[in-house]
Amino acid sequence: MLMDAAGYRESLRAYRPRVFVNGQTVEQVADEPLLAPGINAVGITYDLAHQEAHKALMTARQSSSGKTVNRMLHIDDNASDLLSKLEAVRLACRISGCAQRYLAHDSLNALWQATARTDAQRGTDYSDRFRAYLHDVQDRDLTLGIAMTDAKGDRSKRPGAQANRDAYVHIKERRKDGIVIRGTKAIVTGAPYMHEFLVMPCRTHAPGDEDFAVCCAVPCDAEGVTIVARPAGRPGDPAAKFSAQYGQSTGVVIFEDVFVPWARVFLAGELEEGGVLTTSYATHHRHSCIAARAGFGDLLIGAGALMVEANGLDAERHSHVREQMVELITIVESFFACGVAASVYCQADPAGSVMPDVVFSNIGKLLLATKIYDMHRIAHYVSGGLVVALPGPDEDHNPETAASLSAVLTGRADIPYAQRAEVARMIEDLTVSKEAGWYSVISLHGGGSPEAMKREIWRNYPVMEKVELVETLLGRGVLDDGRRVSKQPGRCCATGCQVPDRMSPVQTAAE
Amino acid sequence: MLMDAAGYRESLRAYRPRVFVNGQTVEQVADEPLLAPGINAVGITYDLAHQEAHKALMTARQSSSGKTVNRMLHIDDNASDLLSKLEAVRLACRISGCAQRYLAHDSLNALWQATARTDAQRGTDYSDRFRAYLHDVQDRDLTLGIAMTDAKGDRSKRPGAQANRDAYVHIKERRKDGIVIRGTKAIVTGAPYMHEFLVMPCRTHAPGDEDFAVCCAVPCDAEGVTIVARPAGRPGDPAAKFSAQYGQSTGVVIFEDVFVPWARVFLAGELEEGGVLTTSYATHHRHSCIAARAGFGDLLIGAGALMVEANGLDAERHSHVREQMVELITIVESFFACGVAASVYCQADPAGSVMPDVVFSNIGKLLLATKIYDMHRIAHYVSGGLVVALPGPDEDHNPETAASLSAVLTGRADIPYAQRAEVARMIEDLTVSKEAGWYSVISLHGGGSPEAMKREIWRNYPVMEKVELVETLLGRGVLDDGRRVSKQPGRCCATGCQVPDRMSPVQTAAE
Amino acid sequence: MLMDAAGYRESLRAYRPRVFVNGQTVEQVADEPLLAPGINAVGITYDLAHQEAHKALMTARQSSSGKTVNRMLHIDDNASDLLSKLEAVRLACRISGCAQRYLAHDSLNALWQATARTDAQRGTDYSDRFRAYLHDVQDRDLTLGIAMTDAKGDRSKRPGAQANRDAYVHIKERRKDGIVIRGTKAIVTGAPYMHEFLVMPCRTHAPGDEDFAVCCAVPCDAEGVTIVARPAGRPGDPAAKFSAQYGQSTGVVIFEDVFVPWARVFLAGELEEGGVLTTSYATHHRHSCIAARAGFGDLLIGAGALMVEANGLDAERHSHVREQMVELITIVESFFACGVAASVYCQADPAGSVMPDVVFSNIGKLLLATKIYDMHRIAHYVSGGLVVALPGPDEDHNPETAASLSAVLTGRADIPYAQRAEVARMIEDLTVSKEAGWYSVISLHGGGSPEAMKREIWRNYPVMEKVELVETLLGRGVLDDGRRVSKQPGRCCATGCQVPDRMSPVQTAAE
Amino acid sequence: MLMDAAGYRESLRAYRPRVFVNGQTVEQVADEPLLAPGINAVGITYDLAHQEAHKALMTARQSSSGKTVNRMLHIDDNASDLLSKLEAVRLACRISGCAQRYLAHDSLNALWQATARTDAQRGTDYSDRFRAYLHDVQDRDLTLGIAMTDAKGDRSKRPGAQANRDAYVHIKERRKDGIVIRGTKAIVTGAPYMHEFLVMPCRTHAPGDEDFAVCCAVPCDAEGVTIVARPAGRPGDPAAKFSAQYGQSTGVVIFEDVFVPWARVFLAGELEEGGVLTTSYATHHRHSCIAARAGFGDLLIGAGALMVEANGLDAERHSHVREQMVELITIVESFFACGVAASVYCQADPAGSVMPDVVFSNIGKLLLATKIYDMHRIAHYVSGGLVVALPGPDEDHNPETAASLSAVLTGRADIPYAQRAEVARMIEDLTVSKEAGWYSVISLHGGGSPEAMKREIWRNYPVMEKVELVETLLGRGVLDDGRRVSKQPGRCCATGCQVPDRMSPVQTAAE
Repeated sequence: MLMDAAGYRESLRAYRPRVFVNGQTVEQVADEPLLAPGINAVGITYDLAHQEAHKALMTARQSSSGKTVNRMLHIDDNASDLLSKLEAVRLACRISGCAQRYLAHDSLNALWQATARTDAQRGTDYSDRFRAYLHDVQDRDLTLGIAMTDAKGDRSKRPGAQANRDAYVHIKERRKDGIVIRGTKAIVTGAPYMHEFLVMPCRTHAPGDEDFAVCCAVPCDAEGVTIVARPAGRPGDPAAKFSAQYGQSTGVVIFEDVFVPWARVFLAGELEEGGVLTTSYATHHRHSCIAARAGFGDLLIGAGALMVEANGLDAERHSHVREQMVELITIVESFFACGVAASVYCQADPAGSVMPDVVFSNIGKLLLATKIYDMHRIAHYVSGGLVVALPGPDEDHNPETAASLSAVLTGRADIPYAQRAEVARMIEDLTVSKEAGWYSVISLHGGGSPEAMKREIWRNYPVMEKVELVETLLGRGVLDDGRRVSKQPGRCCATGCQVPDRMSPVQTAAE
Repeated sequence: MLMDAAGYRESLRAYRPRVFVNGQTVEQVADEPLLAPGINAVGITYDLAHQEAHKALMTARQSSSGKTVNRMLHIDDNASDLLSKLEAVRLACRISGCAQRYLAHDSLNALWQATARTDAQRGTDYSDRFRAYLHDVQDRDLTLGIAMTDAKGDRSKRPGAQANRDAYVHIKERRKDGIVIRGTKAIVTGAPYMHEFLVMPCRTHAPGDEDFAVCCAVPCDAEGVTIVARPAGRPGDPAAKFSAQYGQSTGVVIFEDVFVPWARVFLAGELEEGGVLTTSYATHHRHSCIAARAGFGDLLIGAGALMVEANGLDAERHSHVREQMVELITIVESFFACGVAASVYCQADPAGSVMPDVVFSNIGKLLLATKIYDMHRIAHYVSGGLVVALPGPDEDHNPETAASLSAVLTGRADIPYAQRAEVARMIEDLTVSKEAGWYSVISLHGGGSPEAMKREIWRNYPVMEKVELVETLLGRGVLDDGRRVSKQPGRCCATGCQVPDRMSPVQTAAE
Repeated sequence: MLMDAAGYRESLRAYRPRVFVNGQTVEQVADEPLLAPGINAVGITYDLAHQEAHKALMTARQSSSGKTVNRMLHIDDNASDLLSKLEAVRLACRISGCAQRYLAHDSLNALWQATARTDAQRGTDYSDRFRAYLHDVQDRDLTLGIAMTDAKGDRSKRPGAQANRDAYVHIKERRKDGIVIRGTKAIVTGAPYMHEFLVMPCRTHAPGDEDFAVCCAVPCDAEGVTIVARPAGRPGDPAAKFSAQYGQSTGVVIFEDVFVPWARVFLAGELEEGGVLTTSYATHHRHSCIAARAGFGDLLIGAGALMVEANGLDAERHSHVREQMVELITIVESFFACGVAASVYCQADPAGSVMPDVVFSNIGKLLLATKIYDMHRIAHYVSGGLVVALPGPDEDHNPETAASLSAVLTGRADIPYAQRAEVARMIEDLTVSKEAGWYSVISLHGGGSPEAMKREIWRNYPVMEKVELVETLLGRGVLDDGRRVSKQPGRCCATGCQVPDRMSPVQTAAE
Repeated sequence: MLMDAAGYRESLRAYRPRVFVNGQTVEQVADEPLLAPGINAVGITYDLAHQEAHKALMTARQSSSGKTVNRMLHIDDNASDLLSKLEAVRLACRISGCAQRYLAHDSLNALWQATARTDAQRGTDYSDRFRAYLHDVQDRDLTLGIAMTDAKGDRSKRPGAQANRDAYVHIKERRKDGIVIRGTKAIVTGAPYMHEFLVMPCRTHAPGDEDFAVCCAVPCDAEGVTIVARPAGRPGDPAAKFSAQYGQSTGVVIFEDVFVPWARVFLAGELEEGGVLTTSYATHHRHSCIAARAGFGDLLIGAGALMVEANGLDAERHSHVREQMVELITIVESFFACGVAASVYCQADPAGSVMPDVVFSNIGKLLLATKIYDMHRIAHYVSGGLVVALPGPDEDHNPETAASLSAVLTGRADIPYAQRAEVARMIEDLTVSKEAGWYSVISLHGGGSPEAMKREIWRNYPVMEKVELVETLLGRGVLDDGRRVSKQPGRCCATGCQVPDRMSPVQTAAE
């Protein structure tokens, strides 16, 4: 059953989570104005799945069940699925700013891979458990919060060496019927309006820290769960042309001795597979982030073009404005292209699903992380100074000044003051407000810091293959021409991959 | 009489301006909480002039009167004055974010040059009038608002061709005892807490638009003046670690048939000298902006270093953090260096004062305008994700969550949670909040758009001198070695200047 | 019949072109040492087609004939073909620096589209003619030179208004059996060792300039053809570790009353289709350039890593070196990703073939054009100063100094001096030599200037679609939620394309 | 006695150095065509000192002797001297590309500081010795080569631990009358046409490596000295419009048991002062490099503007060309501004001389090092494709093609082909040739790698002063307002310096 946005909102009433926002208790999440923009944003992923124009993109057939599910909950079978997810996330985020629910996709796909791996290595039955859970989530069309980043405490000490063990979520007790977990997760996207949390490790663990390698599913209102969140967007602010409607809350989630039955436990001390899970999630998530921020880019491009028009300028004639718009387009589409390439050069997993190419995914995320600031710069450049010249919306209703202000602040005669002001406030909302600054930080640090991406690129790039190429050209390799590039088995491709290891684009197209 | 900050605040009570903030009438500016951060910021320029450590820098001897005046109101005599102004502005802005009052300096210096020029060209007595006004302002130690940017209306039409002439401030009537002005100025820095406004033209004018070439001084509470302003900073916001204390208001100032006696009129229809005034102001102002944003850079560098420490990192050992800090330093000091060079290569004006070099001033402003975004990026980079992980300050006082949050969000054991949170909120205030976004926009567009700076650089750079150099090397010039560079009269310097036209550094040092 | 490199070289003996290099007549192109590196580079595209490991990539089935042809001469049927061409070009260029022959591919594909269009518009039979020519070229496995950029003369005048009409190649005479062309083409890649030239227009033409809208095929030794070329690479230079072996010649080709029979004429005055031809070629070519320079990037990455090793550094431990290597990888793979995305989002042509997406192709080319300089910077950064410290290779054989130099210039004990010097000279050859500088310029300007790409991006980007998105969010569009994005018919994708206009990735994969 | 260029060349005949170029013995340096461009470039510094227009800049009064000396050999007394040196170096390098002789200045100034320091610490008489040597060098108006960078061998081992001690120059024997040195120096600028070498340590040394902390003066033809050099520029190459005339040789200098009398020894085992000497030289040299590359920038700006003109374009009308030219100007003048700021904020040394500010000097050098590549990019951008379209100069004299080529390759009717070709070849010489690539590498690595500069910036920047500023603003400092910034004794300036430690600009101007 695929819900729509209204259904999703109503479905939250079935839960009774303990939620604080701005230090106040939230009685009913579904009715809380401070959270409404976040619920609206997630709701977009539900509504689009019902629209004729987008149904094919926003849903998918889950091959393990044969059922049609929301694309945000689907396990990717091939490169086309990855491309579709990319487009689906961009579509949802260009409307909502950030639709948040794609994190569920990223986590479910990582778990699909990691549980299969654990079973193969250790003869466990995690993948059966997980498949049952997955199908249930898909059937109920849930939204899942990813509780991954631990509070961390003293970063120079490993989890098990912290003075306060609660700085990392861990298994406090293993019981016959399940586990008891404890600790705090920070920066949980959309925390107050999720149906459930997927608790995941945020780092690899060394022997001795087995209790910290834990992954499990917890309903948002399980006993012992407390959610401390920020408001989503700028609810009720008349200047917030966009973020009064759509926004994102993040929260700290405190787990105080929460019991989780085994059927909902997907990792419990397996150190190596914990690392696989973390890395796989990071790759899927960075790939999704590319699309999310491309959607934000679409908003900026559109708003920038409207602002240029309202100022009476014309990108055709004013080449310095066109130059900027083209730079904005170049930034957005070049990082999006990395997402496309990561899809095309995806890696087939033994679990039967695919993972985006690690190098392209990390490069795309690295580019968006550092270039979001340039995107703001360009938006400001093409908008001119009106964004700061404009008095606040309260002034629009001041009978003593409103008329004379609107008379002189009109630009082109055919665009009324109200319309010009509206676009300027949209730009302000997207690039000047606290929400804008906040998006910058999560663009930079969300899914890992730039340094983490650089290390991952270096670790995965086939540098040795290029070294061998140069050595061959220097005559250090084998001599006969036919064997010049013979160290590259299979066919050559972008990152020196080999046919057995990943799906080549030709195969993708042929299947 | 040099006032201190308290005296400045009290002095505002002598005025009764018509001020609206957020659509509400402000009864008493000196007591208005929404404006307090702005008054505090301007106040810094008053207090520093009394501190032993800074007195020498923050005051200067006005050579036309022999009196000691606040550096923000001083007419620059030489390169050393320009360097001192640069340092004084940086000092005041590193404490206040933006001390605003340097705009008075920029305008007074431009008027000093322009009125002398008008008199020389036309035999008028503007410079006497202006000198009397200047000395009065210095004696009373006033703060002046610069009412320059017009509302502009339809940008494709010149001022005189606007459907609504009030889109530009203009002379409505010339009377025996003075003029009557009318129109609206936008983006007036610090508008509600200025003693007076200097009304200045914001562009050059074509014949027929003589009424728009007007410059005059108007008390803030002159009859017919209305100020519509935004709050200064984030007054009263507990999360605003900096901008609850210091901030900046901007306002729209509406002039409705305001009478100005001739003694306060400094330009009234002289088209050519209006252009000189505008350009000279732009050069002085861009030079000052360099110092202002370098002061903001000091805040970011300090806050960034504190955040690195609070996260338990060390720029010595973590080279990717050091790399970023060095990039931040490089950005700030390289645009500041342009301010220094502009001072050293200043141009002596026939009026007896000096003007910073146009090319270096514009390059410095262009660099800060576009690199403020990189400064934010770096501040976010070195701060990590805590800025978004941290719940709001209300949560600090929530008895149900505060203890467990502070327990797990502590980083280094020797830095308490409250201290770490405080620094994170300082970074948020400086780079994530609405104030931060707002500073970005005024950094980019304040003092003219980047395109305006590029045009000014091109217009003033001695390209032909370099062309002649290359032609000489290609053998196209005169032949004998001694005359190789003979097309450069005087001595060669950075921008190909000549001794008679500007003060060379050697002369500066020798005087 | 697919030739190999040796066969290709021999096949050149069948022609007797009039060729000058360095002002000297070349008697036999196949034996000319100054051209050998160019012939070697093109030869790579022949040899790879015979190697087991690369055969599948380097050949393709021409659907109009059913024959297997070299990928460099193939008409692309679908997205997979475009991806394969991309990989094939990268493969050939990573070995040869630049294999040159892909220009034939770009031109043949453009002609396939343009001739079909002309026939559809005008009822001509150009596509039949062209298909016959294409199949002949494929059967004989030829290499074609693209004679496109005219000498141009005075750029402020159109071709027909030039004082000297020969500044542009044009139809001098139309005869019953063919046309006579005249004029000069500049910058013809690989000119002296091509079998034939495809003469193409380099710009759109206005009415009155019909004679300049001409496209035809001319054997390299047709009567009236003169080729004035530069040497290919650095033949015979002992310091040229790479470019003594592989290089590229460019030439000016002068056509003095050359007769071309109608069977070889593919455009003769059709102004509009001349524009289509030029634009289509530009898109295919920019797409290919992306892959070519990615291959060059592979060389730099490999050589850089070898140099780091020879200097005794380690990218794992020396993070500033790793930082640079990751930046190099990021540059190369992000522009390559644009090529991948252009393939995936290709546009189906009525002629039955596909064209890479214009926006992504131009963005990729724009990025490589401007970032080739950063690639050099990084290669120098990671290589250190040895590149300039090293005496020339002559010194290696100077008995008075060689021993003591090699003793002190050895770095790591396990890497002999000769090996370290060899890598340093490889870096010098790739990034310091004249060849290196030359590659920079053609990276920047080849296939059109950056400004041309920016204009093409702006002209083709669906800005209005983004404007409508924002207008809808501002409530200006239709009201009910379901129709929010209804202005986007079909499915949404990266550049707002619509299903009927181009092949969506899902369709690609499904076929 | 100040020599002129001709005198300098003749003076070389008095020496009989053992020099190899391209593996061949050079009999007479003054007559060797392969070295002539280097001798010409150095000669510029001699000739300019005699030209009326530049005499004041190119000479200075040595305060310790009262004599007038060439600015390239002068010890700087104050900020004005540093500014004059900056302008003098820019002037000489804008004519010669790189005049090389400023390295003598950098080294002499470092020795002035270091020898005084050694004497103060250890009661030695190095400064007397050095002063005598300095005055002799000034009197004879010599050119000194700086033999600093050692061959280095295995970089993971310290000098004393090398398998081959000759990888670093060291004291092999201490005798009553002097020392015997041995080892190899790499990358000695202008090695074959220097009068003497100043042997200097290139790094700090740990105890046990005292023999490697050696500084002394050695005539170029001292027994045991061998110079292995590359040609200077591109002598005799008809395409080399610039570098056939002016160029730079670098050489390896091998010292095989060279005896140096004590009067010419300025450091002999004093570890700490060796570090001071190295660091001081680095600062002076980086400061000079800024001016040298600004001179190169002048050449590029001039040549670029000529090329734009020859192509028939106009930076006024073609804004994308102006945009590029302004970017080029911005790059050049912003790093030059750092040199100006380093002069103004110079540090007074106990030895009585001044040293440029370390932070500004390093920032300026860092900027030029990384932006030289952007300068090439822009030069190529504005020049268009002619640089690669143009056949070589041999073709100009080919009677079969010259006429038709010049006819069609003429651009603007009023600029003859020869003139356009000449400018294109000038651009090629400056930015495409091997010389161009070579200048890029020495811009990047000369005077230390970018990483070395970043470390030096970090080590010297007053970060703690900014930390204290923020702590004070956060209320952590002392409470009363007057003492807010009290941790900054003296006056505040750009890099938080204090009056007693360096000369403030105000003081500079006042003296």
